[in-house]
Amino acid sequence: MPELRKDIITGRWVIISTDRAHRPTDFVRQSVEIRGGGFCPFCPGGEAKTPPEVLAFGRNGGGANTAGWTVRVVPNKFPALGIEGTLDRQGEGIFGKMNGIGAHEVIVETPDHYGSLATLPEYSVEQVLWAYRDRILDLKKDRRFRYILIFKNHGEAAGATLEHTHSQLIALPIVPKRVREEVDNSRKYYGEKERCIFCDILRQEREAGVRVILENDDCIAISPYAPRFPFETWLLPKRHASAYEDAEAGIYRGCAALLRDVLRRMDAVLEKPAYNYVIHTSPAGEETNDHYHWHIEMMPRLTKVAGFEWGTDFYLNPTPPEEAARFLREAVVTVG
Amino acid sequence: MPELRKDIITGRWVIISTDRAHRPTDFVRQSVEIRGGGFCPFCPGGEAKTPPEVLAFGRNGGGANTAGWTVRVVPNKFPALGIEGTLDRQGEGIFGKMNGIGAHEVIVETPDHYGSLATLPEYSVEQVLWAYRDRILDLKKDRRFRYILIFKNHGEAAGATLEHTHSQLIALPIVPKRVREEVDNSRKYYGEKERCIFCDILRQEREAGVRVILENDDCIAISPYAPRFPFETWLLPKRHASAYEDAEAGIYRGCAALLRDVLRRMDAVLEKPAYNYVIHTSPAGEETNDHYHWHIEMMPRLTKVAGFEWGTDFYLNPTPPEEAARFLREAVVTVG
Repeated sequence: MPELRKDIITGRWVIISTDRAHRPTDFVRQSVEIRGGGFCPFCPGGEAKTPPEVLAFGRNGGGANTAGWTVRVVPNKFPALGIEGTLDRQGEGIFGKMNGIGAHEVIVETPDHYGSLATLPEYSVEQVLWAYRDRILDLKKDRRFRYILIFKNHGEAAGATLEHTHSQLIALPIVPKRVREEVDNSRKYYGEKERCIFCDILRQEREAGVRVILENDDCIAISPYAPRFPFETWLLPKRHASAYEDAEAGIYRGCAALLRDVLRRMDAVLEKPAYNYVIHTSPAGEETNDHYHWHIEMMPRLTKVAGFEWGTDFYLNPTPPEEAARFLREAVVTVG
Repeated sequence: MPELRKDIITGRWVIISTDRAHRPTDFVRQSVEIRGGGFCPFCPGGEAKTPPEVLAFGRNGGGANTAGWTVRVVPNKFPALGIEGTLDRQGEGIFGKMNGIGAHEVIVETPDHYGSLATLPEYSVEQVLWAYRDRILDLKKDRRFRYILIFKNHGEAAGATLEHTHSQLIALPIVPKRVREEVDNSRKYYGEKERCIFCDILRQEREAGVRVILENDDCIAISPYAPRFPFETWLLPKRHASAYEDAEAGIYRGCAALLRDVLRRMDAVLEKPAYNYVIHTSPAGEETNDHYHWHIEMMPRLTKVAGFEWGTDFYLNPTPPEEAARFLREAVVTVG
């Protein structure tokens, strides 16, 4: 008998198949392989082909927009939003709109065209997480922005158009709906119980154990109770922390170690899947609070989303999270 | 300058690109072509290969599960939910679940393996809409069900696994999140203004005209103001009606004519795209009300959804709805 499970944070019900549970090998997918060849604007030497950088780590003395960096952040050449102008909120009858003001940046995670977050050294992954933080802190100075969205599309099937490993950042004058919902519902939960809902989830998950993938001193990776997608994974700091950019220094190291480890396990179990991840954090202006708990949501792209899901926000997940967690927990990682 | 637009019903903001607006020919896509060949369980003669039918139209005197039908509804051979049992709601610590009780059916829309809703005669499309209604009315007798979800995946890229044109039905003991949200927000709007939000939208859209694709006496097709996807289209009855299954008889004819016409225009403009549609209607037990307005949401599958969208419910749409509406309005349909 399949189960209907309710995500306690958003209120979304999902169907979890139990009879015809999909094992990792049941998914038809294309492994993400880096082919190389051809000109790459993210490789050292290509600096002039991107807009001028807004951040670079690791360059010792070299000039801006030259080689020698370890992580490099540049504005997106084809930004989804414009940086100049005023929001100019206006009604159009009963509808509402504003100018598409925002920043759209690319975080080039390594100079190595053949690297990925799963294969890079741990400190390189940590540098990427610091770069996210630095860009969030900088962009938050612009009071037009309410949310700095950090996400990664890995592999063509996940929407990546360039294969050189990179993340993206979009600074927005609004809060994305899903984040707004999570924050509001967490606030409501806190109002009733005076406890963070994520801290409560973590406490229960660590006791139950079945959905825990792995943890270190600072962070934990779990398969959520009511995931929409097979092998969906959440990565959270273990101690309450509402804003990603305000984390204690040690957290980024712990998070990087875990993120890399989870990605290596996914590569092993799911044969280098395409994936997305998104950082969920407290909106600008409400960073420090007791109710919200920042985290990273990771979604390997294993199933063809049938599309009706978009019309309903209702999902059929063929892999129980307990199974997914077990596969990832027991994965034998042979990379690197 | 791109625009940020707010969907008035769900509160979701989307980015509408205006600079790099995508014309229909800019999308990389595969046309849906029916190949035929091989055994098809939905073709006449294959009736024994499906579970026994629950509804058939057009068979004059022939026995159940024989050829001669025009529309045929059968249980899904691999149902996502089980029909037998009790809901057995239970907590699992702070989480909640229930048994995956439900019905999962397939509506075979025509005996013609090579037909599609765009190419079939209008009365065949109308029959499909009547079949939806009959199944909803029947399944609602089962008091375990709160929502009867009707949807269609057309083409492999939209999640269809069999090419013989068909829709699906899932009866659920819960209301899908997106529908719940729409109904609740519509009720709130009605509470404030004592007007249906959809009726207000229709009034404004008919006055403005730019997002109207086409209309007849009963129904209207529009590009919504803040669509998530290029060429997303909504089809609504023009007079207030809260439940699909309670519509006046003439509405199904008007709706069928419009649905078929819109699909033909999409086929012409977008070169036979894969698409999904979903019927949004009032949940069982709250069918008759002044605040909600049933409608069909249609989404051609033109863009690769980058996946981060799932983590945020935030969308970048490269085609302004005014452009989409104009292309569909001016389409020259040559089929049939």
